[in-house]
Amino acid sequence: MVADERGSRARSRGRRPAGENTRAALLDAARIEFTERGFDGATVRAIAQRAGVDPAMVNHWFGGKDGLFVAAMEIPVSPEEIVHRVLDGDPERSAERILRTFLSVWDTDGGGALAALMRSVATHEEAARMMRELIGRVIFGRVVSAVAPDQLELRAALCGTQIAGLAMVRYVIRLEPLASTDHNTVVTAIAPNLQRYLTGIL
Amino acid sequence: MVADERGSRARSRGRRPAGENTRAALLDAARIEFTERGFDGATVRAIAQRAGVDPAMVNHWFGGKDGLFVAAMEIPVSPEEIVHRVLDGDPERSAERILRTFLSVWDTDGGGALAALMRSVATHEEAARMMRELIGRVIFGRVVSAVAPDQLELRAALCGTQIAGLAMVRYVIRLEPLASTDHNTVVTAIAPNLQRYLTGIL
Repeated sequence: MVADERGSRARSRGRRPAGENTRAALLDAARIEFTERGFDGATVRAIAQRAGVDPAMVNHWFGGKDGLFVAAMEIPVSPEEIVHRVLDGDPERSAERILRTFLSVWDTDGGGALAALMRSVATHEEAARMMRELIGRVIFGRVVSAVAPDQLELRAALCGTQIAGLAMVRYVIRLEPLASTDHNTVVTAIAPNLQRYLTGIL
Repeated sequence: MVADERGSRARSRGRRPAGENTRAALLDAARIEFTERGFDGATVRAIAQRAGVDPAMVNHWFGGKDGLFVAAMEIPVSPEEIVHRVLDGDPERSAERILRTFLSVWDTDGGGALAALMRSVATHEEAARMMRELIGRVIFGRVVSAVAPDQLELRAALCGTQIAGLAMVRYVIRLEPLASTDHNTVVTAIAPNLQRYLTGIL
Protein backbone atom coordinates (compact mmCIF):
# COMPACT_ATOMS: atom_id res chain seq x y z
CA MET A 1 0.00 0.00 0.00
CA VAL A 2 2.63 2.49 1.07
CA ALA A 3 4.95 1.05 -1.54
CA ASP A 4 2.38 1.49 -4.27
CA GLU A 5 1.61 5.06 -3.28
CA ARG A 6 5.26 6.08 -3.13
CA GLY A 7 6.09 4.25 -6.30
CA SER A 8 3.39 5.98 -8.29
CA ARG A 9 4.29 9.34 -6.77
CA ALA A 10 7.97 8.96 -7.56
CA ARG A 11 7.45 8.07 -11.21
CA SER A 12 4.62 9.53 -13.19
CA ARG A 13 5.72 8.27 -16.59
CA GLY A 14 4.09 4.90 -16.14
CA ARG A 15 3.56 1.91 -13.93
CA ARG A 16 6.75 0.59 -12.38
CA PRO A 17 7.51 -3.09 -11.83
CA ALA A 18 6.59 -4.32 -8.34
CA GLY A 19 10.25 -4.95 -7.44
CA GLU A 20 11.20 -1.33 -7.95
CA ASN A 21 8.22 -0.24 -5.89
CA THR A 22 9.55 -2.34 -3.04
CA ARG A 23 13.02 -0.90 -3.43
CA ALA A 24 11.78 2.70 -3.50
CA ALA A 25 9.52 2.14 -0.49
CA LEU A 26 12.45 0.70 1.46
CA LEU A 27 14.64 3.71 0.60
CA ASP A 28 11.94 6.15 1.73
CA ALA A 29 11.35 4.22 4.94
CA ALA A 30 15.11 3.90 5.57
CA ARG A 31 15.67 7.65 5.29
CA ILE A 32 12.99 8.27 7.90
CA GLU A 33 14.13 5.53 10.30
CA PHE A 34 17.86 6.28 10.03
CA THR A 35 17.20 9.99 10.53
CA GLU A 36 14.94 9.46 13.53
CA ARG A 37 16.88 6.66 15.24
CA GLY A 38 20.42 6.74 13.87
CA PHE A 39 22.21 3.82 12.27
CA ASP A 40 22.25 1.58 15.34
CA GLY A 41 18.74 2.39 16.48
CA ALA A 42 17.03 1.77 13.15
CA THR A 43 16.17 -1.91 12.65
CA VAL A 44 15.65 -3.80 9.42
CA ARG A 45 12.34 -5.00 10.82
CA ALA A 46 11.07 -1.47 11.53
CA ILE A 47 12.18 -0.18 8.13
CA ALA A 48 10.49 -3.07 6.34
CA GLN A 49 7.35 -2.60 8.41
CA ARG A 50 7.23 1.10 7.58
CA ALA A 51 7.69 0.26 3.90
CA GLY A 52 4.98 -2.39 4.10
CA VAL A 53 7.24 -5.15 2.76
CA ASP A 54 8.86 -8.34 4.03
CA PRO A 55 12.15 -7.78 5.95
CA ALA A 56 13.86 -10.29 3.64
CA MET A 57 13.53 -7.69 0.87
CA VAL A 58 16.27 -5.63 2.58
CA ASN A 59 18.80 -8.39 1.96
CA HIS A 60 17.38 -9.07 -1.46
CA TRP A 61 17.65 -5.49 -2.71
CA PHE A 62 20.52 -4.01 -0.66
CA GLY A 63 22.53 -6.92 0.73
CA GLY A 64 21.70 -5.84 4.28
CA LYS A 65 21.33 -2.84 6.55
CA ASP A 66 24.66 -1.23 5.56
CA GLY A 67 23.86 -1.35 1.88
CA LEU A 68 20.42 0.10 2.52
CA PHE A 69 21.93 2.93 4.57
CA VAL A 70 24.40 3.84 1.85
CA ALA A 71 21.75 3.61 -0.87
CA ALA A 72 19.46 5.84 1.22
CA MET A 73 22.26 8.43 1.42
CA GLU A 74 22.78 8.19 -2.35
CA ILE A 75 26.51 7.61 -1.91
CA PRO A 76 27.92 5.81 -4.93
CA VAL A 77 30.18 3.60 -2.84
CA SER A 78 29.79 0.28 -1.09
CA PRO A 79 31.15 0.17 2.45
CA GLU A 80 31.76 -3.56 2.03
CA GLU A 81 34.00 -2.80 -0.91
CA ILE A 82 35.96 -0.17 1.00
CA VAL A 83 36.41 -2.39 4.04
CA HIS A 84 37.36 -5.29 1.78
CA ARG A 85 39.96 -3.27 -0.11
CA VAL A 86 41.44 -1.91 3.08
CA LEU A 87 41.81 -5.31 4.69
CA ASP A 88 43.08 -6.98 1.52
CA GLY A 89 46.79 -6.08 1.72
CA ASP A 90 49.48 -4.54 3.88
CA PRO A 91 47.80 -2.66 6.81
CA GLU A 92 50.55 -0.03 6.59
CA ARG A 93 49.36 0.88 3.10
CA SER A 94 45.64 0.84 3.92
CA ALA A 95 45.39 4.65 3.67
CA GLU A 96 46.61 4.56 0.09
CA ARG A 97 43.94 1.98 -0.80
CA ILE A 98 41.22 4.03 0.93
CA LEU A 99 42.20 7.19 -0.96
CA ARG A 100 42.32 5.42 -4.32
CA THR A 101 38.90 3.88 -3.69
CA PHE A 102 37.29 7.20 -2.77
CA LEU A 103 38.94 9.15 -5.59
CA SER A 104 37.91 6.66 -8.24
CA VAL A 105 34.29 6.67 -7.01
CA TRP A 106 34.09 10.45 -6.54
CA ASP A 107 35.68 11.27 -9.89
CA THR A 108 33.29 9.14 -11.94
CA ASP A 109 30.86 12.03 -12.41
CA GLY A 110 33.37 14.84 -11.92
CA GLY A 111 32.53 14.99 -8.23
CA GLY A 112 28.95 16.17 -8.81
CA ALA A 113 27.27 13.61 -6.55
CA LEU A 114 29.82 14.19 -3.82
CA ALA A 115 29.49 17.97 -3.98
CA ALA A 116 25.70 17.52 -3.70
CA LEU A 117 26.20 15.26 -0.68
CA MET A 118 28.49 17.78 1.04
CA ARG A 119 25.91 20.51 0.37
CA SER A 120 23.24 18.35 1.90
CA VAL A 121 25.40 17.57 4.93
CA ALA A 122 26.16 21.25 5.47
CA THR A 123 22.53 22.35 5.29
CA HIS A 124 20.40 19.51 6.67
CA GLU A 125 20.71 18.14 10.16
CA GLU A 126 19.43 14.71 9.06
CA ALA A 127 22.13 14.47 6.37
CA ALA A 128 24.76 15.56 8.90
CA ARG A 129 23.53 12.86 11.26
CA MET A 130 23.70 10.22 8.54
CA MET A 131 27.22 11.35 7.63
CA ARG A 132 28.11 11.03 11.32
CA GLU A 133 26.94 7.41 11.27
CA LEU A 134 28.65 6.75 7.96
CA ILE A 135 32.04 8.04 9.09
CA GLY A 136 31.82 6.90 12.68
CA ARG A 137 30.44 3.42 12.21
CA VAL A 138 29.73 2.17 8.73
CA ILE A 139 33.04 2.99 7.03
CA PHE A 140 35.81 4.22 9.31
CA GLY A 141 34.48 2.54 12.41
CA ARG A 142 35.05 -0.82 10.76
CA VAL A 143 38.25 0.01 9.01
CA VAL A 144 39.70 1.33 12.24
CA SER A 145 38.58 -1.70 14.26
CA ALA A 146 40.40 -3.88 11.76
CA VAL A 147 43.75 -2.06 11.63
CA ALA A 148 44.10 0.41 14.51
CA PRO A 149 45.82 -0.42 17.79
CA ASP A 150 43.84 1.91 20.09
CA GLN A 151 41.60 5.01 20.38
CA LEU A 152 39.23 3.66 17.76
CA GLU A 153 36.62 6.45 17.91
CA LEU A 154 39.19 9.24 17.79
CA ARG A 155 40.96 7.60 14.85
CA ALA A 156 37.70 7.18 12.92
CA ALA A 157 36.85 10.86 13.47
CA LEU A 158 40.36 11.95 12.43
CA CYS A 159 40.09 9.90 9.23
CA GLY A 160 36.79 11.70 8.71
CA THR A 161 38.49 15.11 8.91
CA GLN A 162 40.97 14.19 6.18
CA ILE A 163 38.44 12.57 3.86
CA ALA A 164 35.75 15.24 4.34
CA GLY A 165 38.39 17.96 3.95
CA LEU A 166 39.71 16.45 0.72
CA ALA A 167 36.12 16.23 -0.56
CA MET A 168 35.48 19.90 0.31
CA VAL A 169 38.71 21.24 -1.20
CA ARG A 170 38.73 19.08 -4.36
CA TYR A 171 35.03 19.15 -5.26
CA VAL A 172 33.28 22.04 -3.45
CA ILE A 173 35.89 24.78 -2.85
CA ARG A 174 37.85 23.52 -5.90
CA LEU A 175 41.22 24.88 -4.89
CA GLU A 176 44.09 24.11 -7.26
CA PRO A 177 46.23 22.13 -7.63
CA LEU A 178 44.11 19.63 -5.64
CA ALA A 179 40.95 20.32 -7.64
CA SER A 180 42.27 18.81 -10.85
CA THR A 181 45.49 16.97 -10.11
CA ASP A 182 45.82 13.23 -10.80
CA HIS A 183 45.18 10.51 -8.23
CA ASN A 184 48.84 9.63 -7.77
CA THR A 185 49.71 13.16 -6.68
CA VAL A 186 46.80 13.24 -4.21
CA VAL A 187 47.70 9.82 -2.80
CA THR A 188 51.41 10.61 -2.46
CA ALA A 189 50.61 13.84 -0.62
CA ILE A 190 47.79 12.64 1.66
CA ALA A 191 48.23 8.90 2.28
CA PRO A 192 51.00 9.26 4.91
CA ASN A 193 48.76 11.61 6.91
CA LEU A 194 45.71 9.35 6.68
CA GLN A 195 47.89 6.35 7.55
CA ARG A 196 49.01 8.06 10.75
CA TYR A 197 45.37 8.50 11.75
CA LEU A 198 44.76 4.80 11.12
CA THR A 199 47.80 3.09 12.61
CA GLY A 200 50.32 5.72 13.76
CA ILE A 201 51.12 7.18 17.16
CA LEU A 202 48.58 9.88 18.02
CA MET B 1 25.19 58.62 -1.86
CA VAL B 2 25.42 54.88 -2.28
CA ALA B 3 26.69 54.67 1.27
CA ASP B 4 23.71 56.60 2.58
CA GLU B 5 21.21 54.49 0.68
CA ARG B 6 22.75 51.19 1.82
CA GLY B 7 23.13 52.44 5.34
CA SER B 8 19.50 53.39 5.69
CA ARG B 9 18.42 50.14 4.06
CA ALA B 10 20.54 48.05 6.41
CA ARG B 11 19.28 49.63 9.62
CA SER B 12 15.75 50.81 10.00
CA ARG B 13 15.90 51.55 13.71
CA GLY B 14 17.37 54.98 13.22
CA ARG B 15 19.99 57.08 11.57
CA ARG B 16 23.45 55.58 11.70
CA PRO B 17 26.65 57.59 12.15
CA ALA B 18 28.35 58.47 8.86
CA GLY B 19 31.36 56.27 9.69
CA GLU B 20 29.26 53.14 9.93
CA ASN B 21 27.58 54.01 6.65
CA THR B 22 31.00 54.11 5.03
CA ARG B 23 31.98 50.80 6.58
CA ALA B 24 28.74 49.07 5.49
CA ALA B 25 29.03 50.48 1.96
CA LEU B 26 32.61 49.18 1.71
CA LEU B 27 31.52 45.71 2.87
CA ASP B 28 28.72 45.58 0.29
CA ALA B 29 31.02 46.79 -2.48
CA ALA B 30 33.79 44.37 -1.41
CA ARG B 31 31.48 41.34 -1.58
CA ILE B 32 30.54 42.25 -5.15
CA GLU B 33 34.09 43.01 -6.31
CA PHE B 34 35.72 40.00 -4.64
CA THR B 35 33.02 37.70 -6.00
CA GLU B 36 33.28 39.08 -9.53
CA ARG B 37 37.06 39.48 -9.75
CA GLY B 38 38.61 37.27 -7.07
CA PHE B 39 40.97 38.46 -4.36
CA ASP B 40 43.80 39.50 -6.68
CA GLY B 41 41.60 41.08 -9.32
CA ALA B 42 39.59 43.26 -6.96
CA THR B 43 41.33 46.57 -6.22
CA VAL B 44 40.92 48.84 -3.21
CA ARG B 45 40.34 51.70 -5.65
CA ALA B 46 37.48 49.89 -7.45
CA ILE B 47 35.84 48.81 -4.18
CA ALA B 48 36.02 52.35 -2.80
CA GLN B 49 34.67 53.78 -6.04
CA ARG B 50 31.75 51.34 -6.02
CA ALA B 51 31.05 52.28 -2.40
CA GLY B 52 31.26 55.99 -3.24
CA VAL B 53 33.93 56.66 -0.60
CA ASP B 54 37.59 57.63 -0.48
CA PRO B 55 40.02 54.67 -0.91
CA ALA B 56 41.78 55.72 2.31
CA MET B 57 38.65 54.58 4.17
CA VAL B 58 39.65 50.94 3.46
CA ASN B 59 42.79 51.32 5.53
CA HIS B 60 40.95 53.37 8.13
CA TRP B 61 38.18 50.82 8.71
CA PHE B 62 39.77 47.50 7.82
CA GLY B 63 43.53 47.96 7.94
CA GLY B 64 43.80 47.13 4.25
CA LYS B 65 42.50 44.82 1.54
CA ASP B 66 43.03 41.61 3.53
CA GLY B 67 41.08 42.87 6.50
CA LEU B 68 38.27 44.04 4.23
CA PHE B 69 38.16 40.63 2.53
CA VAL B 70 37.88 38.79 5.82
CA ALA B 71 35.29 41.22 7.18
CA ALA B 72 33.28 40.79 3.96
CA MET B 73 33.32 37.01 4.50
CA GLU B 74 32.22 37.49 8.12
CA ILE B 75 35.06 35.31 9.37
CA PRO B 76 35.85 36.18 12.97
CA VAL B 77 39.59 35.88 12.46
CA SER B 78 42.32 38.22 11.33
CA PRO B 79 44.72 36.79 8.75
CA GLU B 80 47.42 39.13 10.03
CA GLU B 81 47.03 37.60 13.46
CA ILE B 82 47.28 34.05 12.13
CA VAL B 83 50.32 34.84 9.99
CA HIS B 84 51.90 36.68 12.91
CA ARG B 85 51.33 33.80 15.33
CA VAL B 86 52.68 31.28 12.85
CA LEU B 87 55.86 33.21 12.17
CA ASP B 88 56.43 34.10 15.81
CA GLY B 89 58.18 30.96 17.04
CA ASP B 90 59.70 27.66 15.97
CA PRO B 91 58.66 26.91 12.36
CA GLU B 92 58.47 23.21 13.24
CA ARG B 93 55.67 23.97 15.68
CA SER B 94 53.75 26.34 13.39
CA ALA B 95 50.95 23.80 12.85
CA GLU B 96 50.26 23.69 16.56
CA ARG B 97 49.97 27.48 16.69
CA ILE B 98 47.66 27.53 13.65
CA LEU B 99 45.36 24.93 15.19
CA ARG B 100 45.19 26.70 18.55
CA THR B 101 44.40 29.99 16.82
CA PHE B 102 41.57 28.51 14.74
CA LEU B 103 40.10 26.47 17.60
CA SER B 104 40.01 29.44 19.96
CA VAL B 105 38.31 31.63 17.35
CA TRP B 106 35.84 28.96 16.20
CA ASP B 107 34.87 27.88 19.71
CA THR B 108 33.97 31.39 20.90
CA ASP B 109 30.35 31.01 19.79
CA GLY B 110 30.21 27.22 19.91
CA GLY B 111 31.16 27.01 16.26
CA GLY B 112 27.92 28.65 15.07
CA ALA B 113 29.55 31.24 12.81
CA LEU B 114 31.89 28.64 11.34
CA ALA B 115 29.08 26.17 10.68
CA ALA B 116 27.18 28.97 8.91
CA LEU B 117 30.25 29.76 6.84
CA MET B 118 30.70 26.11 5.81
CA ARG B 119 27.03 25.96 4.84
CA SER B 120 27.46 29.06 2.75
CA VAL B 121 30.58 27.65 1.08
CA ALA B 122 28.83 24.38 0.29
CA THR B 123 25.78 26.05 -1.26
CA HIS B 124 26.96 29.30 -2.89
CA GLU B 125 29.54 29.47 -5.64
CA GLU B 126 30.57 32.98 -4.62
CA ALA B 127 31.26 31.84 -1.05
CA ALA B 128 33.20 28.84 -2.38
CA ARG B 129 35.25 31.21 -4.52
CA MET B 130 35.98 33.47 -1.57
CA MET B 131 37.00 30.46 0.52
CA ARG B 132 39.30 29.44 -2.33
CA GLU B 133 40.99 32.83 -2.16
CA LEU B 134 41.09 32.75 1.62
CA ILE B 135 42.78 29.36 1.82
CA GLY B 136 44.91 29.69 -1.28
CA ARG B 137 46.22 33.21 -0.84
CA VAL B 138 45.16 35.20 2.19
CA ILE B 139 45.91 32.70 4.94
CA PHE B 140 47.73 29.56 3.87
CA GLY B 141 49.35 31.10 0.83
CA ARG B 142 51.26 33.44 3.13
CA VAL B 143 51.92 31.00 5.89
CA VAL B 144 53.26 28.51 3.40
CA SER B 145 55.48 31.10 1.67
CA ALA B 146 57.00 31.89 5.03
CA VAL B 147 57.76 28.37 6.24
CA ALA B 148 57.54 25.83 3.38
CA PRO B 149 60.55 24.72 1.35
CA ASP B 150 58.74 23.97 -1.95
CA GLN B 151 55.41 23.17 -3.70
CA LEU B 152 53.76 26.20 -2.12
CA GLU B 153 50.36 25.91 -3.82
CA LEU B 154 50.02 22.20 -3.13
CA ARG B 155 50.97 22.70 0.53
CA ALA B 156 48.43 25.52 0.93
CA ALA B 157 45.67 23.33 -0.54
CA LEU B 158 46.67 20.38 1.66
CA CYS B 159 46.51 22.60 4.75
CA GLY B 160 43.07 23.60 3.52
CA THR B 161 41.92 19.96 3.47
CA GLN B 162 42.92 19.44 7.09
CA ILE B 163 41.47 22.71 8.38
CA ALA B 164 38.23 22.49 6.36
CA GLY B 165 37.87 18.83 7.36
CA LEU B 166 38.33 19.61 11.04
CA ALA B 167 35.74 22.39 10.71
CA MET B 168 33.26 20.02 9.04
CA VAL B 169 33.71 17.15 11.51
CA ARG B 170 33.84 19.25 14.68
CA TYR B 171 31.14 21.82 13.95
CA VAL B 172 28.90 20.60 11.10
CA ILE B 173 28.92 16.77 11.17
CA ARG B 174 29.69 16.90 14.93
CA LEU B 175 31.27 13.49 15.20
CA GLU B 176 32.54 12.53 18.66
CA PRO B 177 35.03 12.59 20.23
CA LEU B 178 36.24 15.48 17.99
CA ALA B 179 32.99 17.44 18.33
CA SER B 180 33.47 18.18 22.01
CA THR B 181 36.98 17.25 23.03
CA ASP B 182 39.40 19.85 24.42
CA HIS B 183 41.89 21.79 22.34
CA ASN B 184 44.92 19.91 23.61
CA THR B 185 43.54 16.58 22.39
CA VAL B 186 42.76 18.04 18.96
CA VAL B 187 46.17 19.65 18.68
CA THR B 188 48.07 16.54 19.79
CA ALA B 189 46.19 14.42 17.26
CA ILE B 190 46.22 16.77 14.26
CA ALA B 191 49.27 19.08 14.55
CA PRO B 192 51.82 16.50 13.29
CA ASN B 193 49.71 15.95 10.15
CA LEU B 194 49.26 19.68 9.49
CA GLN B 195 52.97 20.22 10.15
CA ARG B 196 53.85 17.68 7.45
CA TYR B 197 51.75 19.63 4.97
CA LEU B 198 53.58 22.82 5.93
CA THR B 199 57.21 21.75 6.18
CA GLY B 200 57.47 17.97 5.75
CA ILE B 201 58.43 15.80 2.80
CA LEU B 202 55.43 15.39 0.51
